[in-house]
Amino acid sequence: EIGHVSASKTLEEDSLRNSQIFYEKMSRRRVTNVYKDISVPFKVVQNIVRTADTCPSFSSTNQPWTICVVGAEKTKCEVRHLIEEAAKKRYALEHGLADEAEDSNMVAALSHVWSKAYLSDAPFLILLFAHVSHRDESDNWVPVEGAETAVATLLGLLLAAIQVSGLSTIATAARHCDPDIRSLLHRPSTEKKEKRKKYHKNLVLREQVDTKKSTRSIQNPKQKWIDQEEQGVDLDPLNKLLNFIEY
Amino acid sequence: EIGHVSASKTLEEDSLRNSQIFYEKMSRRRVTNVYKDISVPFKVVQNIVRTADTCPSFSSTNQPWTICVVGAEKTKCEVRHLIEEAAKKRYALEHGLADEAEDSNMVAALSHVWSKAYLSDAPFLILLFAHVSHRDESDNWVPVEGAETAVATLLGLLLAAIQVSGLSTIATAARHCDPDIRSLLHRPSTEKKEKRKKYHKNLVLREQVDTKKSTRSIQNPKQKWIDQEEQGVDLDPLNKLLNFIEY
Ligand SMILES: Cc1cc2nc3c(=O)[nH]c(=O)nc-3n(C[C@H](O)[C@H](O)[C@H](O)COP(=O)(O)O)c2cc1C
Ligand SMILES: Cc1cc2nc3c(=O)[nH]c(=O)nc-3n(C[C@H](O)[C@H](O)[C@H](O)COP(=O)(O)O)c2cc1C
Repeated sequence: EIGHVSASKTLEEDSLRNSQIFYEKMSRRRVTNVYKDISVPFKVVQNIVRTADTCPSFSSTNQPWTICVVGAEKTKCEVRHLIEEAAKKRYALEHGLADEAEDSNMVAALSHVWSKAYLSDAPFLILLFAHVSHRDESDNWVPVEGAETAVATLLGLLLAAIQVSGLSTIATAARHCDPDIRSLLHRPSTEKKEKRKKYHKNLVLREQVDTKKSTRSIQNPKQKWIDQEEQGVDLDPLNKLLNFIEY
Repeated sequence: EIGHVSASKTLEEDSLRNSQIFYEKMSRRRVTNVYKDISVPFKVVQNIVRTADTCPSFSSTNQPWTICVVGAEKTKCEVRHLIEEAAKKRYALEHGLADEAEDSNMVAALSHVWSKAYLSDAPFLILLFAHVSHRDESDNWVPVEGAETAVATLLGLLLAAIQVSGLSTIATAARHCDPDIRSLLHRPSTEKKEKRKKYHKNLVLREQVDTKKSTRSIQNPKQKWIDQEEQGVDLDPLNKLLNFIEY
């Protein structure tokens, strides 16, 4: 009886301590939109993505998401460009501006509104794609209930994993340019047929610490991936879920 | 220069270790739907809820959610009853069954389908309410964009915080009985006006460890709350967000 009480006491104490430490860590998270060019070990990104992938499924469709990591400068810039251009276009549309020189100068002058430098400055973009529909047995496209909710929950796990790793984030929605980003990243047709509007979110991560530029910045993420594989790092489970974009 | 390199090396090592430990913890999470009657220190629940509340807002409306913790046996049973009855009703409706004796016997016989014993067995239910609309300056109800996405992300943080605390969870949607649960929990009118169907999710948590029933089970959570306040525990920040239901 005494044995039971003290075992349970220890469990309660562990629970208290761990919940407290985690709260303190998470409460220090702040949205970061200025990123300096320092490197993040790719193994850290792997751990973060693996953690996010432990998300519950919400639906009969198993893990209705794809997580894409973009580390290539060129691809990051392309993603940024697509998102910024879509925002500009949208702005012009909503303010009834025609495609005339005068108007487009005005829109350009307001660039601070949609400038998202963090999309190219951050070392990695993590893009979350919800499988909002899938083919049923009769080969018809049917909606996957809860796919977007699952992806939003996955984002919560991602924010936690990134914060725990001492890195920093900004979450942003890729508004009005989902199809363009999908084709940029060569997403397979199984993710192309969407029924709803809000389709995926972008997540940007970055080291929180303010250190000088490292010489270890990743020039060719695909190459790095292969190097790690050759070094015998266990990449198999991640290969199933992580799409590392070539450029 | 050497100083800088080694500082950055340490940061990378910390990042690697922390991301790895967190991944290992989170990968052990499994949905649990059988709960024994043991106690969870309320301070742990507080830390968990505080952690979830660090979720980013997604919208111009600050923190468009309310987190309710239900520990009272009676209220847990009432929540369970509402959810189970709604599921039964829905089943009858979808299968074209009228409200006749024969049909309702048949529905009752299928009780295993909608029985959710965990809703009363777990020591705590954490109910998440999304503020799907709010009053604007002209006192009109307008939708809060992203409120449900924010709550789903908050759920991700909640799952992480609970897992880190050594506790166990099952997430479930309160389908087709949202208004009943709102009135059961006396949610204020600011949360009553909903525009969309899926309105809140329930989350149930429980100690993962298999120990004997504790004598410290919470009989009157309201009382416990007050006791803790009198003992000088810092409850102020939590009061703003946590609605601890009287019964
Ligand atoms: C918001 C949410 C709602 C859920 N609703 C239900 C539900 O109504 N019924 C159910 O059986 N499971 C429900 N689940 C549980 C998932 O279906 C569960 O995660 C699934 O069984 C996969 O298990 P896993 O977490 O081990 O991946 C829900 C999960 C979440 C996150
Ligand atoms: C999925 C998601 C999408 C978001 N989209 C945008 C966005 O498009 N533009 C923006 O400025 N902030 C966006 N945010 C950031 C939130 O507005 C941000 O969390 C808010 O500024 C509150 O900051 P906090 O995290 O410190 O609470 C988004 C956040 C999330 C989680």
